[in-house]
Amino acid sequence: MNTFGRLFRVHIFGESHGESVGVVIDGCPAGLTVDETLLLPDLERRKGGIQKGTTPRKEADFPLFKSGIFNGKTTGAPIAIFFENQNTRSEDYTSQRSIPRPGHADFVANKKFGGYEDYRGGGHFSARLTTGLVAAGSIAKKVIGPSSIEAQVIEIGGESDPEKGLQKAINAKDSVGGIIECRVKQVPIGLGEPFFDSVESLLAHALFSIPAVKGVEFGSGFDAARMFGSENNDSIIDPNGTTKSNHAGGINGGITNGNDLVFRIAIKPASSTPKEQESLNWDTNTIESFSIKGRHDLCVALRAPVIVEALTAIVLADLFLLDQQAQRRHTD
Amino acid sequence: MNTFGRLFRVHIFGESHGESVGVVIDGCPAGLTVDETLLLPDLERRKGGIQKGTTPRKEADFPLFKSGIFNGKTTGAPIAIFFENQNTRSEDYTSQRSIPRPGHADFVANKKFGGYEDYRGGGHFSARLTTGLVAAGSIAKKVIGPSSIEAQVIEIGGESDPEKGLQKAINAKDSVGGIIECRVKQVPIGLGEPFFDSVESLLAHALFSIPAVKGVEFGSGFDAARMFGSENNDSIIDPNGTTKSNHAGGINGGITNGNDLVFRIAIKPASSTPKEQESLNWDTNTIESFSIKGRHDLCVALRAPVIVEALTAIVLADLFLLDQQAQRRHTD
Amino acid sequence: MNTFGRLFRVHIFGESHGESVGVVIDGCPAGLTVDETLLLPDLERRKGGIQKGTTPRKEADFPLFKSGIFNGKTTGAPIAIFFENQNTRSEDYTSQRSIPRPGHADFVANKKFGGYEDYRGGGHFSARLTTGLVAAGSIAKKVIGPSSIEAQVIEIGGESDPEKGLQKAINAKDSVGGIIECRVKQVPIGLGEPFFDSVESLLAHALFSIPAVKGVEFGSGFDAARMFGSENNDSIIDPNGTTKSNHAGGINGGITNGNDLVFRIAIKPASSTPKEQESLNWDTNTIESFSIKGRHDLCVALRAPVIVEALTAIVLADLFLLDQQAQRRHTD
Amino acid sequence: MNTFGRLFRVHIFGESHGESVGVVIDGCPAGLTVDETLLLPDLERRKGGIQKGTTPRKEADFPLFKSGIFNGKTTGAPIAIFFENQNTRSEDYTSQRSIPRPGHADFVANKKFGGYEDYRGGGHFSARLTTGLVAAGSIAKKVIGPSSIEAQVIEIGGESDPEKGLQKAINAKDSVGGIIECRVKQVPIGLGEPFFDSVESLLAHALFSIPAVKGVEFGSGFDAARMFGSENNDSIIDPNGTTKSNHAGGINGGITNGNDLVFRIAIKPASSTPKEQESLNWDTNTIESFSIKGRHDLCVALRAPVIVEALTAIVLADLFLLDQQAQRRHTD
Repeated sequence: MNTFGRLFRVHIFGESHGESVGVVIDGCPAGLTVDETLLLPDLERRKGGIQKGTTPRKEADFPLFKSGIFNGKTTGAPIAIFFENQNTRSEDYTSQRSIPRPGHADFVANKKFGGYEDYRGGGHFSARLTTGLVAAGSIAKKVIGPSSIEAQVIEIGGESDPEKGLQKAINAKDSVGGIIECRVKQVPIGLGEPFFDSVESLLAHALFSIPAVKGVEFGSGFDAARMFGSENNDSIIDPNGTTKSNHAGGINGGITNGNDLVFRIAIKPASSTPKEQESLNWDTNTIESFSIKGRHDLCVALRAPVIVEALTAIVLADLFLLDQQAQRRHTD
Repeated sequence: MNTFGRLFRVHIFGESHGESVGVVIDGCPAGLTVDETLLLPDLERRKGGIQKGTTPRKEADFPLFKSGIFNGKTTGAPIAIFFENQNTRSEDYTSQRSIPRPGHADFVANKKFGGYEDYRGGGHFSARLTTGLVAAGSIAKKVIGPSSIEAQVIEIGGESDPEKGLQKAINAKDSVGGIIECRVKQVPIGLGEPFFDSVESLLAHALFSIPAVKGVEFGSGFDAARMFGSENNDSIIDPNGTTKSNHAGGINGGITNGNDLVFRIAIKPASSTPKEQESLNWDTNTIESFSIKGRHDLCVALRAPVIVEALTAIVLADLFLLDQQAQRRHTD
Repeated sequence: MNTFGRLFRVHIFGESHGESVGVVIDGCPAGLTVDETLLLPDLERRKGGIQKGTTPRKEADFPLFKSGIFNGKTTGAPIAIFFENQNTRSEDYTSQRSIPRPGHADFVANKKFGGYEDYRGGGHFSARLTTGLVAAGSIAKKVIGPSSIEAQVIEIGGESDPEKGLQKAINAKDSVGGIIECRVKQVPIGLGEPFFDSVESLLAHALFSIPAVKGVEFGSGFDAARMFGSENNDSIIDPNGTTKSNHAGGINGGITNGNDLVFRIAIKPASSTPKEQESLNWDTNTIESFSIKGRHDLCVALRAPVIVEALTAIVLADLFLLDQQAQRRHTD
Repeated sequence: MNTFGRLFRVHIFGESHGESVGVVIDGCPAGLTVDETLLLPDLERRKGGIQKGTTPRKEADFPLFKSGIFNGKTTGAPIAIFFENQNTRSEDYTSQRSIPRPGHADFVANKKFGGYEDYRGGGHFSARLTTGLVAAGSIAKKVIGPSSIEAQVIEIGGESDPEKGLQKAINAKDSVGGIIECRVKQVPIGLGEPFFDSVESLLAHALFSIPAVKGVEFGSGFDAARMFGSENNDSIIDPNGTTKSNHAGGINGGITNGNDLVFRIAIKPASSTPKEQESLNWDTNTIESFSIKGRHDLCVALRAPVIVEALTAIVLADLFLLDQQAQRRHTD
């Protein structure tokens, strides 16, 4: 449901135009210095509003710590963080309700929750929910110690120069998709498990929780499907497992091999495009033309890197804590 | 670890050259007719040995039901199914041990399990473990009722004619990757949850549990990242949620929208290529050339469709059972 | 950790003297009418302050809904509820810190969390955390429909007249333990599973989460251990499973049999007794006499019935939702 | 369902008169010496057949290792263990089917599984399923290192001399209940979590999975409910947390405090008593007198200590592995 993780667990809640969004983080080790200043830089990156192509809607996004911190340190108890919603314009959305927006969750939410869903601005399906994830990610980054995570936009609208791809969208007055690449350095060998808790499984599970994500690939990914084995295999060249190439993206048999973790995520164009679209009006049972009101990102991929980093950090924090059990292995 | 699912749960176990592989299926509804004849067709598809490019190693792969079936019907108790290992040639592997094979889990298994891992033929990391998954999949297919799942190879070695791509590999005496497409018809609206239990998250989690899988995309997937929103959005054209196009692959906001579920999986080339390769010899600490002994598939993608179908069925069976709770919604 | 439930899930957080306590409820069906007036009666029962023997500390305990409710109804999204802490006197506790209080979690919390725990008033171990549980319980009671839960104090300080047992404690100026009996009527047949998800297992798991609970017994419980089989067995007397006696407390083989669910819970005396006690002073490494400052309940059992009801409702809500899958059984 | 544990996980399966019973153990550390000789002593204790009052039915109960062991050591992969059923007399049970036996799961199983349950000898509800648990327990005991677990019968039929209580049952030709006490020595400080993963919660969850268990109490248990706080509190007398008394049974706030873990379990009399009983005949809808055929234990409590030890070891093994994460705490 709205929980991820086994030992480092995040629970998210909230709605786009409700009172708040937030996160409860359970299982965070005690003794870490955590306060607003730790969280604000990543939250700022998520907000957008500065870059071209991102929406000017700016909530303060100021984290309110409600539990789990004492004297500026984590206590080992659950950390609840709230974000009050501000600057919402619900009137933008209510008139729209009779027409489920293409690409959005309006239709499925209505069917699944029987009309009781909070439909304002996507409600619980809104990307605003990622605020809590980003906050949890900043804390998770502290848990994974020396490993460093960096995600960046490597393509927008098919252009490897993101600036150029974005300009295409601005010119076309249309939203546009993009590709994020994430790289984790200094990954310990041995994280993950064979089969269902493979690192690929856990990362993909987390990453696909973001509705705009429609593809995930590790290392050479889909290109690997076009290679011969002799090209794709990574020769091991030293006892630390360093490989000559890194087509595997740092993972063999579901387990980290000590090389950089590398993966890419396909972000679809924002469903809220300024372009006129067609959809069914439920009330009149006719197809109507309409255009989305309100201010929306042309390219949600621009805000996505910090979310990708956060989810990656959350997965790795869990695996780091799980890995501690490995110290008990091999003894009789 | 080796468990997947919340209500329909599979637990796998076994090693390539140990005594057996198998599966325990917990949470299967009572009253379903399940016997060997239900399982054998899918098991036969997984075995290969007939098609060009698959290994001639042929275990009998005969399912031994050890619990959970009574008078030919499921009882509601866990169903344990065993497959005895036969026709194994352990001697092919022992001599290899000092050189961790590129692309395989040899190196990480050794680091993670401290040398206690069963290294024969990949041990617990072997694709032989998918035997149990395929058996569970055949049972899961009964649980999901009218929904039909069909996976097929759509590309080998970059060729959209799989036959042609395979011939390239045979000519090159090298293994080769491929792409599988899976389509599920007659999917009920409303399966899945927002965020962490999105249908994409659950399917990707299951699919990436197969070590050879390096990429998963839904609907237009990575192509969506290159589109404008007005191109990618699927207009809803009737009250059942039918859409004009299906770029979303049947999923909005993580929830099935009633259209066909469509996704593709990138399968890397088999790590066991007949080509000569290089890797580190742990004992001598020198780089050695070697070639893999034993009989191996040139293209594991050829066997993969039935495994992809099985994992898809397992995920959907779980979601079907979870969906029953929806009937309790909307009442006060 | 701080989560309970599979389909109806509660996550609790907070500290006694931190900013707040609260709960996130995930998996609650959509469409239920939930507001403050639903929650306040049970919250009032938990607060105490009126009855003899309960502490006069009175937080407002007013539930602040932060998500998951829209137009007065549940939406199917997580319901976050906060309670601000007020009326706390932290100075009562800080001076105490060098002496871990007998019966409290002071010692183990310090060892487990390395001194980073919030030690004020028991911190995260405080009974104040049950506020969120009681709120979740009031909502869970709506989910279980016609089943009714009633818990009451049946014994205090060994006296079957609770009033008399409490007077003994008041006279002795000491805290005192008690026994709660809980009875659930109109329980559907078939809730629970054999073995690890037996109704006894799930209820005991939830009930023992309250630190003051030191014993749980179902039906005849410990008395059954002193009976012959012919005395203890409950003869079935009609096709609905009605039994002549109810020594089993409504559960056979871990599964509800349609009779009343009956169980008892042993509540130890409050560890905070006004009596002088001895414990180790960590700073001086000497045994010291001291008495607990602050205002505390003489008999926490008096507040416990509503908490027992809440936990019972939470367990049953989960089983009710799980039971929906049963409708899919027996079909081929 | 049929799974217990988070890091050290057991999955049980099988039926009393089906082909086999067994267990899959996932998450066991690699490198432990595990073979038949490790398991047989505990399996022998479970079998009974030697002591007065236990049934002479003797399956060989020989453990067949099917995976997870290589060169006599655990590999870190799942360990599957099978026990073939032998010496079963199904004919004893079939004639009985129209009369659900009082105290047994016959009635609820039929309702829950719609008549598809394996009804022979209790099917999946049979105590024979504990064979797998005992095997898992013997392995778990290796994981918990220096901690030692000892359970013993301390009361039968209300007599503190078990021999005398059993004789009463033999004389009465009736089954009889009993009480087991379990003590764990050398328990590390800090196992368990506040609230839902308290040591009491986890142990009670595991122990109540055995259908014959109807009560569990820790330390003074129900007696604590009759005490004053000044009597029940355990004074801490040294920096290791040693307490003067041990009314808490070694647990404060849900967490082990370093003292012996002490708890008692109420075992009801075997439902299969030789005495004549009454129950409803489903076919004729009349109350009938009948007596149970077959050979059954007069006092199942006699076999229970080894099962109690096994479940305790399984819970503690999980907590030991979880505790490894504690090493990561307190660092920034």
